[in-house]
Amino acid sequence: MLDDVVTVPLWVDLTAVAVTSGQGALVAGQDQGRERLDFIGVVFIGVAAGLGGGLIRDILLSRVPAALNTNSYLATAVIAAVVGMLFARPVRRLAPVIVIIDAFALGLYLVVGMTTASGAGLGTIPMIFVGVLASTGGGLIRDLLSGEPIALVQGGTFYVTAALGGALVFLGVKMFANTGTASVCALIATLLLRLASLWFGWNSPRPRTLPVDLPPFGFK
Amino acid sequence: MLDDVVTVPLWVDLTAVAVTSGQGALVAGQDQGRERLDFIGVVFIGVAAGLGGGLIRDILLSRVPAALNTNSYLATAVIAAVVGMLFARPVRRLAPVIVIIDAFALGLYLVVGMTTASGAGLGTIPMIFVGVLASTGGGLIRDLLSGEPIALVQGGTFYVTAALGGALVFLGVKMFANTGTASVCALIATLLLRLASLWFGWNSPRPRTLPVDLPPFGFK
Amino acid sequence: MLDDVVTVPLWVDLTAVAVTSGQGALVAGQDQGRERLDFIGVVFIGVAAGLGGGLIRDILLSRVPAALNTNSYLATAVIAAVVGMLFARPVRRLAPVIVIIDAFALGLYLVVGMTTASGAGLGTIPMIFVGVLASTGGGLIRDLLSGEPIALVQGGTFYVTAALGGALVFLGVKMFANTGTASVCALIATLLLRLASLWFGWNSPRPRTLPVDLPPFGFK
Repeated sequence: MLDDVVTVPLWVDLTAVAVTSGQGALVAGQDQGRERLDFIGVVFIGVAAGLGGGLIRDILLSRVPAALNTNSYLATAVIAAVVGMLFARPVRRLAPVIVIIDAFALGLYLVVGMTTASGAGLGTIPMIFVGVLASTGGGLIRDLLSGEPIALVQGGTFYVTAALGGALVFLGVKMFANTGTASVCALIATLLLRLASLWFGWNSPRPRTLPVDLPPFGFK
Repeated sequence: MLDDVVTVPLWVDLTAVAVTSGQGALVAGQDQGRERLDFIGVVFIGVAAGLGGGLIRDILLSRVPAALNTNSYLATAVIAAVVGMLFARPVRRLAPVIVIIDAFALGLYLVVGMTTASGAGLGTIPMIFVGVLASTGGGLIRDLLSGEPIALVQGGTFYVTAALGGALVFLGVKMFANTGTASVCALIATLLLRLASLWFGWNSPRPRTLPVDLPPFGFK
Repeated sequence: MLDDVVTVPLWVDLTAVAVTSGQGALVAGQDQGRERLDFIGVVFIGVAAGLGGGLIRDILLSRVPAALNTNSYLATAVIAAVVGMLFARPVRRLAPVIVIIDAFALGLYLVVGMTTASGAGLGTIPMIFVGVLASTGGGLIRDLLSGEPIALVQGGTFYVTAALGGALVFLGVKMFANTGTASVCALIATLLLRLASLWFGWNSPRPRTLPVDLPPFGFK
């Protein structure tokens, strides 16, 4: 268990929620074949994208989700999703800013997830598991709801890899420093990994090509 | 937090479960391309449709789902799902009755969800969130399991909109009256909104048409 | 509630996790059209396949999942998923062994799920529900994540039927014997039902063919 707890200022947390929700709604509104999504559906998906990671984290830790303990999270997520959908054109001009804040949110949710899991008494590997799910679960729920392939498990996205890298940095720094320092380092590492993957066009590694003939019985 | 709690007679609750489960199995059994669903799959989906909203509500509130505290919910859901699948033809003759009870169930789950969330100490916006998910979550899980697009987020369905309208009625009436009165008004409002949407062919509003060219990087 | 609790030796539990995770990754890596899954996605799906049933069980019972209380479950699942993916060819030679251990895992998760649910005070039908979801939920989550039709509800798979049969054996034997005996009998029954379904090519029963014309309004 960690020696100290990381407290994130509410405005930082809400900024991360706003960006991920707004972006979730923007993506859901723009996806090909998604013309049939209605107004409320798009907002719903945006909210799920912004809050889903935290919901998964708190459900796994068997507690009432933090996002339900105050009005501010849901209000922020709804407003951001509406803005992201309605003002897609000007919002898209902010793409570079959004991408940076989104990468920041990835690192933030990772660190909050890991320290919360640790505070609940979880060991190292469950800590990583909860942290990675907390940071990437919003996108997972967004894709499930909008009927898209789950980006998380597809080639060409680097979210999980960046989160895993950040988790290792957290654990490494934690050996020599306190939780606060480890959190900041992990957040920065995740942010940089995600941005570097975009800048240099990194893809996460593919699985080895496997023979496609299935065994004669029963692997389903 | 509310001053008083709404208690729903068990037979009312079970009627709602029976109708939503039976209808879930009927829809799952009839869907195009669903010929591959097997008997147990259809029943499973029916049960999920009838109990899913309550499961989501109680998981969010971090308590053992009410449907697992007694045999009656699951037994009702399973029997109704089997009936809905086997006797699809006569059941479909009851379509007008089913549609009315289904709209009633939408309002009932909304009100039970909102008052339960309030009893757990949640604020206004989380109350709405939990209520809407409790009333519409069964359909969401049904669609996920049967591989259909999630009706909840598609154009042309009015469930979420009707539930949101009912939630606003609840909060409005609650300012002047007690929880019981607000619950009854909200239930009736949800029921009427849902039926009116069918009668007059209302659709929930579409999102503004957005340009489909995505920004050059990284919105996934 | 049961008179005694079933304790499963850790190595038995971890063997079941290893086989279901490795197999999950192997299936995910081989599925047609899944070439786009990346390395981490395949491992992620394998882990979800191995641990998903237990996660669903513990979330329904409102407790922190057992798999998060120690490093060993996640470590086993990750290693097995990597092995299942990388060494698909030699692993597939072990198909008969894997199929038997997989059928064993189905029965094991069923029995652990039922006795855990009973220990939490649940009644008979909820016990069956939790047991069946615990034994089949990993495959459900695997299919959701990999975008495949949910095998659980499709014709031609016998998992749920075998688990239901095992649950009935458990309840029947429990009338005359203690929990341990009932558990062993149920585990063997589930194992044999699953293997017999493969050997004799049993399919779970299809739903009656239903007329496909939907009622004129509102069954969605």
